[in-house]
Amino acid sequence: MQINYPNGTTHFNNDANRNKKQASRLEPPKTFGKRGMTFEEHINTSNDYYAQRKIAIIHKKPTPIQIVKVDYPHRSAATITEAYFRQASTTDYNGVYQGYYLDFEAKETKNKQSFPLNNFHTHQLEHLQACHEQHGISFVLLWFSSLQRCFFLPLPALALYWQAQKDGKKSIPLKDIEQKGIEITLGVHPRIPYIEAVKEYITKGMKN
Amino acid sequence: MQINYPNGTTHFNNDANRNKKQASRLEPPKTFGKRGMTFEEHINTSNDYYAQRKIAIIHKKPTPIQIVKVDYPHRSAATITEAYFRQASTTDYNGVYQGYYLDFEAKETKNKQSFPLNNFHTHQLEHLQACHEQHGISFVLLWFSSLQRCFFLPLPALALYWQAQKDGKKSIPLKDIEQKGIEITLGVHPRIPYIEAVKEYITKGMKN
Repeated sequence: MQINYPNGTTHFNNDANRNKKQASRLEPPKTFGKRGMTFEEHINTSNDYYAQRKIAIIHKKPTPIQIVKVDYPHRSAATITEAYFRQASTTDYNGVYQGYYLDFEAKETKNKQSFPLNNFHTHQLEHLQACHEQHGISFVLLWFSSLQRCFFLPLPALALYWQAQKDGKKSIPLKDIEQKGIEITLGVHPRIPYIEAVKEYITKGMKN
Repeated sequence: MQINYPNGTTHFNNDANRNKKQASRLEPPKTFGKRGMTFEEHINTSNDYYAQRKIAIIHKKPTPIQIVKVDYPHRSAATITEAYFRQASTTDYNGVYQGYYLDFEAKETKNKQSFPLNNFHTHQLEHLQACHEQHGISFVLLWFSSLQRCFFLPLPALALYWQAQKDGKKSIPLKDIEQKGIEITLGVHPRIPYIEAVKEYITKGMKN
């Protein structure tokens, strides 16, 4: 399945050879490499779509940065000349959908059988849990790049596997994700229609 | 009213002389100048309080920065050596309180009679409006530093004044804010108990 975005970027796909072959038939991507847009970038364009259609207002948070030194070569253009990446204390995405607070993290793997838990950090799980306790909808979007399959997995399901790490289980089997998550069928606009999964989750009574 | 914070910072107050006098009786603030913590910092410590007590999960978003150049002098310490401040597309604060999505911006003025509208930017109003349409609770926290008075003003009230700028009205009179907003009585823990105003707003039926 080949998607041509209006701005000339291609769909995300980790099969490098296949994309290399396709690249010659396409406008060169403006920002990203031959593999096309990343999972994160597709979520961002999906969020743009949702905002434009007034379906949901979801934003990716900026990367937290510790600024140490700023130069002011011109009055209007402050240049940061020394800064460091900081550890985030929350997740990457949050916002509002029809009165529901949504909070999520997006992760990907090349694995085909399971999703490794070391993709997640303790502070992310803690933040998702805190939002869940405030009756927000906390979840993760999981992308199996080799399989080109995407899943919505609610926090309560993820949390069980997170805790099971103590018993030596380091990943979530795909078959469990198929059962406890909601598969998101990739589309064109939006590319990752995850709000459909959120709707289904709400309709089912936000269990799991 | 003098508040001693455990970490030695003083309360926020724009009366520089008064604080200069008091400073000698206090531990020196660890991070901030003689005027003590800023309005924003007090909101942040209030958010910490709310999170610790599981009352609400509200975070300030990081400042968006365009990174141009990163050096890797050591494997573990990437140093950003060229970066620029970007315009934010949302507001500074959002999060969840008991299932309600909250979105707000915090602003201050030294004025005593009115709050100047040029404190706000179009993208902030647009974002607050979009969240309001998604049934989130959109508002602003207004700090009159000379009066040491703080108000919660819901988006619908603010929006009327924002639109009235076309007619030459460049600020919101304090007496209107007293009437259409909810005054927040400053406390100790949290310093700015704005969730009380949110509760009152919800109870009243989120009108205005």
